[in-house]
Amino acid sequence: MKKSTLKVIPLGGLGEIGKNITAIEYEDEIIVIDCGVSFPDDDMLGIDLVIPEITYLLENKEKVKGLFITHGHEDHIGSIPYILKQLNMDIYATRLTIGLIESKLEEHKIDNRNLISVKEGDVIKFNKLSVEFIRATHSIADACSLAIFTPIGTIVHTGDFKIDYTPIDGRVMDLNRFSALGEEGILLLMADSTNVERSGHSLSEKTIGETLNRIIGGATGRVIVATFASNIHRMQQVVDASLKENRKICFSGRSMENVSNVAMELGYLHIPEGEVISVDELNNHDDKITIITTGSQGEPMAGLSRIAYGNHRKIKLEPNDLFIISASPIPGNDKMISKVINQLYKKGAEVIYEDLEDVHVSGHAYQEELKLIHSITKPKYFLPVHGEYRHLKHHADLAKKMGMPGQNIFTMETGDVLEITEDDAKVAGKVRTGVLYVDGIGVGDVGNIVLRDRRNLARDGMVIIVFAIDRENFYLASGPDVITRGFIYARESEEIINEIKEVSRQKIEECLADEAVGWQVLKGSVRKAVENLLFEKTKRRPSVFPIIMEV
Amino acid sequence: MKKSTLKVIPLGGLGEIGKNITAIEYEDEIIVIDCGVSFPDDDMLGIDLVIPEITYLLENKEKVKGLFITHGHEDHIGSIPYILKQLNMDIYATRLTIGLIESKLEEHKIDNRNLISVKEGDVIKFNKLSVEFIRATHSIADACSLAIFTPIGTIVHTGDFKIDYTPIDGRVMDLNRFSALGEEGILLLMADSTNVERSGHSLSEKTIGETLNRIIGGATGRVIVATFASNIHRMQQVVDASLKENRKICFSGRSMENVSNVAMELGYLHIPEGEVISVDELNNHDDKITIITTGSQGEPMAGLSRIAYGNHRKIKLEPNDLFIISASPIPGNDKMISKVINQLYKKGAEVIYEDLEDVHVSGHAYQEELKLIHSITKPKYFLPVHGEYRHLKHHADLAKKMGMPGQNIFTMETGDVLEITEDDAKVAGKVRTGVLYVDGIGVGDVGNIVLRDRRNLARDGMVIIVFAIDRENFYLASGPDVITRGFIYARESEEIINEIKEVSRQKIEECLADEAVGWQVLKGSVRKAVENLLFEKTKRRPSVFPIIMEV
Repeated sequence: MKKSTLKVIPLGGLGEIGKNITAIEYEDEIIVIDCGVSFPDDDMLGIDLVIPEITYLLENKEKVKGLFITHGHEDHIGSIPYILKQLNMDIYATRLTIGLIESKLEEHKIDNRNLISVKEGDVIKFNKLSVEFIRATHSIADACSLAIFTPIGTIVHTGDFKIDYTPIDGRVMDLNRFSALGEEGILLLMADSTNVERSGHSLSEKTIGETLNRIIGGATGRVIVATFASNIHRMQQVVDASLKENRKICFSGRSMENVSNVAMELGYLHIPEGEVISVDELNNHDDKITIITTGSQGEPMAGLSRIAYGNHRKIKLEPNDLFIISASPIPGNDKMISKVINQLYKKGAEVIYEDLEDVHVSGHAYQEELKLIHSITKPKYFLPVHGEYRHLKHHADLAKKMGMPGQNIFTMETGDVLEITEDDAKVAGKVRTGVLYVDGIGVGDVGNIVLRDRRNLARDGMVIIVFAIDRENFYLASGPDVITRGFIYARESEEIINEIKEVSRQKIEECLADEAVGWQVLKGSVRKAVENLLFEKTKRRPSVFPIIMEV
Repeated sequence: MKKSTLKVIPLGGLGEIGKNITAIEYEDEIIVIDCGVSFPDDDMLGIDLVIPEITYLLENKEKVKGLFITHGHEDHIGSIPYILKQLNMDIYATRLTIGLIESKLEEHKIDNRNLISVKEGDVIKFNKLSVEFIRATHSIADACSLAIFTPIGTIVHTGDFKIDYTPIDGRVMDLNRFSALGEEGILLLMADSTNVERSGHSLSEKTIGETLNRIIGGATGRVIVATFASNIHRMQQVVDASLKENRKICFSGRSMENVSNVAMELGYLHIPEGEVISVDELNNHDDKITIITTGSQGEPMAGLSRIAYGNHRKIKLEPNDLFIISASPIPGNDKMISKVINQLYKKGAEVIYEDLEDVHVSGHAYQEELKLIHSITKPKYFLPVHGEYRHLKHHADLAKKMGMPGQNIFTMETGDVLEITEDDAKVAGKVRTGVLYVDGIGVGDVGNIVLRDRRNLARDGMVIIVFAIDRENFYLASGPDVITRGFIYARESEEIINEIKEVSRQKIEECLADEAVGWQVLKGSVRKAVENLLFEKTKRRPSVFPIIMEV
């Protein structure tokens, strides 16, 4: 009997493809991989988070067997609280990842969930599909790749990974398992493309340890390290370097406290009892302290910025503080980070960052690591994932250079469906997907029209022209009054305000003279006249809102 | 007789210090150096340009002897049209720089100016101060450093520079002159700090030539190069590589056409007659074409983006086009550039950029170049300029490591006054300065209050509540009506709109019951009630504007 078609569908995601959530479907079973957030672009004004739009999964919800999480980064777990409200799924992940998801669900007060803690080598079996967790290395502990066994063949999904032969926890990526699967035959490889533009091999997390030892060893005052809250191995290295110098450790920032607590409880972060002090105890302590804080991206509301600008409630900057920013700028954040660095220097502190010392390594595989994975997995088909289109393209090129035929490689966009049969594979059709904006507690209620209005308001502000019209006798009963915000400093612009009033009044009276005029026409003609006036006088295009009150 | 005090005052500028405009003052003479723009930060919504605020110069305008421009980049000449309207100055610069300034002034329709073309070695003498132009190398042709001779001693100001021993025009930086001045004794060195965090030596512009030859030599379709319009030597290299392949040259984009015309006219860009075709001729031409265009920073309105997104009026993308982005992302622009690259790849074009090939070199000196300048100029005092605070700090550290006493180095902020006498030097006081925002044709009329309003409107939009009150009988004559923009999609949010009306009506009637209530109090209480309602329901804080019409 001929077997059915296997489908692989990257859903959601902003810019990066196949990152936030992916569906793998065979007949009446769907496996979902990861469930993360994207962070809004600069022009998504006021948006807090971007989550996947999962119509496809909702329409096929009886098929969904479970959600498999590769690791605990926000772009892989951040949407879980939102998505679970729409579609309840069993969630499978390793222990630390489960711990981080639990803490997130608690924050969102979500109880009705089924979290299943797995370990490497575990295989979760359904009728037709089964999923194996394979140990990987990444910039968070307990990361996994996945093997998905299907009646058509095996899919290997690397998840985010790098190949670190000397990880801090000693748990090297299980290359032997990748190799064995490769020997058995892999139908489809899905692999991380983030760093495909970087030649060579990424450096081991351990290489930072020596630098940290030297820098922290030489510090005379407090040390304040900003890093990603999720990078537990980085934390461990900072802790180890600090304890050598008899420094106490203090975690500051909500996510830093959360993650360090989870990691300590579960045994992923090792700090002897009594060595951690709380932020409240800082004031009664000498300078033999290392503070580990959030804000490594220069985020204005996070720990590092607050300390730099003197508005942290508990931590006051001292001139002999040594700051270490142990992170890379995520694209788009360079300017914010640079501002914080400038501010720290102005206050007289020392600051060490990536441009000056090797205090950060990437968590994603470089070209030679990717080649290794391609080489030992020897897949029939290849689907580059986790990257913007340029990265997928280069990852496809890399596979071609390694000898894979071009027609076996699929550079897809979100919503594209990769269909694989026993005989061939092709991109066939597209399912509805996209993203939803989270703004405050609203999910999806801010769409493109609202954002376009925000952008217009942001660019040149607005001008409201309000006037009352007597509905019976059809005359201007009051106004026009003019209110502006974000357009011009009104107190110093009486002249232009008066011109707006004058132009509006003329238009209103002109229109009212025509008794048949409708309010929409009247408003439109006032708007047009004022827009023209303002563009001519200022070359700006504020949003103009004429408002009529009938009295 | 004791000599007077020499003052050095960096003015204007956003983030970078001593970049846009600097005053050097001795008794009744002031020399002004450069007159550039800054580009607005992301949170300066709607702002087009940022120019220096020059109150200090206006208050001392009878002292100002002239404006000396080091080179023709926007951050050194871009404010001239705005500043000349406030303060007419003689402008001294080399030929190409003058050409670029002229074209800028024509665009702004400014006639009453006195532009004086100088060449290297020229000395412009006033009573007490004189200024010498010294040949430098930078990412624009005809760049200069300045020596300012004062009764107290000589100041050397490097301007933006790199040390390129094989510049495209063969005109190597005049290190011998720096050396001779160093032998005579230099009082103060002011030097470019942009790349002080980069170790080693920058690469020569010429190194790109080979890469361009290889890439353009291998291209089968059209070649489209995006680069900075001002980088005439880069243009020349692209032209040379293209002519070798019998490609015609086409310049596209307003600034690209402007600059290439000025540079060809003045003999800085060499293209044999008949080899340049206009954009209009493109359609009647085969693929043996190289188009040089703007938009290397991913700017949405510039050439490259327009071509990528298919909205360029004259240039349509073809799948075998080869794009070369011959530029580095300026901090903050990475995401925009990446989007354009993704789009070009999606359309099937090839794209070469800095991460893939050596198609760009920096125009600013690295550490070893800076050390060379310090070494041969042997200044008594040092003022690092052209950089954010972090760069100045590191440049100061570099000078210290080379043996300069810390008290002779001044890390200043904009508006600080460096006072130098025969005996010593110190930062003494501050003058009024800052920046003005240019928005449309308005200069300085958008200030921090307007920007704050724009940011508020941008974040969560706005809600207008308008109602009419009978001024005699003190009752609600009409409304409340509710208008929202950028808050929520109103057509799908009837419920919340009705709640806003209801809460407002309650508040209005409550207030009107108290006959002594003032309109301000009434408005305040409606605003507060609606703000609370909306925050509770949505966790958003739109700007709420209650508007009362008296009828």
